Amino acid sequence: MPTDANPRPTIYDVAQRAGVSKSLVSLVLRGSDHVSPARREAVEAAIEELGYRPSRAAAALASQRTRTVGVLIDDFHNPWFVELLAGLRSVLDPARYTASVADLQLEAATGSNPVEGFLAQHVDALVVAAEPAPGTLDGVDVPMVVAGMRELGLPDDGADVVAGDDELGARLATKHLLGLGHRRIGHLTGRSGPGAHRRRGYEAAMRDAGLEPAVTGEAGGTSEADGYAAACALLDARPETTAIVAGNDVMAVGALAALRERGLAAPADVSVVGHDDSPLAAYRFLGLTSVDGHSREVGAAAARALLARLDHPDAPPHRELLEPSLVVRHSTGPVRDASR
Amino acid sequence: MPTDANPRPTIYDVAQRAGVSKSLVSLVLRGSDHVSPARREAVEAAIEELGYRPSRAAAALASQRTRTVGVLIDDFHNPWFVELLAGLRSVLDPARYTASVADLQLEAATGSNPVEGFLAQHVDALVVAAEPAPGTLDGVDVPMVVAGMRELGLPDDGADVVAGDDELGARLATKHLLGLGHRRIGHLTGRSGPGAHRRRGYEAAMRDAGLEPAVTGEAGGTSEADGYAAACALLDARPETTAIVAGNDVMAVGALAALRERGLAAPADVSVVGHDDSPLAAYRFLGLTSVDGHSREVGAAAARALLARLDHPDAPPHRELLEPSLVVRHSTGPVRDASR
Repeated sequence: MPTDANPRPTIYDVAQRAGVSKSLVSLVLRGSDHVSPARREAVEAAIEELGYRPSRAAAALASQRTRTVGVLIDDFHNPWFVELLAGLRSVLDPARYTASVADLQLEAATGSNPVEGFLAQHVDALVVAAEPAPGTLDGVDVPMVVAGMRELGLPDDGADVVAGDDELGARLATKHLLGLGHRRIGHLTGRSGPGAHRRRGYEAAMRDAGLEPAVTGEAGGTSEADGYAAACALLDARPETTAIVAGNDVMAVGALAALRERGLAAPADVSVVGHDDSPLAAYRFLGLTSVDGHSREVGAAAARALLARLDHPDAPPHRELLEPSLVVRHSTGPVRDASR
Repeated sequence: MPTDANPRPTIYDVAQRAGVSKSLVSLVLRGSDHVSPARREAVEAAIEELGYRPSRAAAALASQRTRTVGVLIDDFHNPWFVELLAGLRSVLDPARYTASVADLQLEAATGSNPVEGFLAQHVDALVVAAEPAPGTLDGVDVPMVVAGMRELGLPDDGADVVAGDDELGARLATKHLLGLGHRRIGHLTGRSGPGAHRRRGYEAAMRDAGLEPAVTGEAGGTSEADGYAAACALLDARPETTAIVAGNDVMAVGALAALRERGLAAPADVSVVGHDDSPLAAYRFLGLTSVDGHSREVGAAAARALLARLDHPDAPPHRELLEPSLVVRHSTGPVRDASR
């Protein structure tokens, strides 16, 4: 029963009381016929006991399907998201679903709340591919798939998740450098979601080889400027560095500038590996060795998981990690001077 | 009267018969009260004489405004469009309009028709920032603003247009190189919309200086690979080249690779100018001098033009060219060897 301390029951309270998932409550509210009579009764009883009133968006959804999926990304300037979206579309389009995309950077700049925008559009489901401000996803009563990130501060930890294995990716990058004879390998990290996993993969590969990890950039972001700053910090603290595992491709390009300023070249003096295998990495002038997280395939698998969830709200959470691969170009090479 | 040769009257036929714009016919169909009684009567008479039946989308529009604007772009991988969209949003959001974006490259890959998608969503208006396949815009009966391109093969040549002045931009880039003492300046072009304007600006600046233009890449696209190929063709045909005006920033990065392959560096041997002032141009490792077409401002001005058109369907076409500026970084410098 709502009290001042616990003001208004949410869909989470209903799900907890009924012993079902949030998605299932949402399906009952929409009048879906994919719900067993027993579960429907449990949800209806919980709604009555708690005095739960569905939101306006949920009410609208009860009357119609919009066949629209809201997709939350971080920044369209990052080609990773463009590929993810292409993968999503490759599955949603043939299923006659439209993707409505919101870019968190853009939304922040214009001061709007993207999730409210999606609910106003009556989306049938959400693909969450970027971490919104805390609380933004509270009370969202449509099925959600987390795409491209392994963890998210979601109220419901039973969400479906499809992601690339960032930890394995950074491990592959580090092992590639170890195989080329490098021992003094540094890592450029940042505060973002995949950053922590990539760092863990680098650290694990270093420790497996009996080497001490060297990480810079913990306090920064993941832009080219952040990569430059982290590489400067690394090279100043450890001038003997012969290889760098960057948190992503633009950070790797920042590292190339830090090297050049110190009279060093890649790969002659220092090898550099990126992550994401963005179009940038393939530009001949850069030719970055990079980890391909197969973001297009992540998008396609996330869309398949979403359609499955809409059909089977009651299925156990779907967790899928796609295996990355390393694309070797000309920014990495054998260690030249063992004394450096 | 519809015949076999002229099967079904379109909104263009109605507009022509009534002596008004397509947008005004659209407004009458939607029951707008921004239309003078005389014009409304003329449109209604034309509809009756021709036996015109509005499309399903038009009928839906008659009953409601969706406050959604369809935005047609070419490729989200190009940061130019990301900036254009940010500008559009900066005006549409406060006016409580939602932008629904379609990416032609993505649509082509998934085999869908973006304009049909917009009409199914009942958009109130379209922003056309990329050239769709011929015929795609035929029969579109909502107001349209062409953004970022000066010309478009539109059936109605009275469309509102807001664009950067690409011709002036390329002229600025060429004059910058002339001012640094360069005379053997080549241009890398491509088949796309702004390419023709940029080429014209380069050619005009060369002729004004009494110099012969040298252009490569006419048959190609505008990617990094196209820039590389065009630069190879230029440098092979005219090894005495000391400066290059590239059609855009990624083409300029392609040119840097062509130079390096020939043992040449920018700016020591050959100066290189890009166009678009993308995030790429500002990366320290590249540091491209580039023309800033102010795409964010183009987007904002296009959105203002669109809102004005929705309010005043009968106003004369709005044509606005924004003045670009040159951002000088370290890919250009004084000509070193006058004999090259």
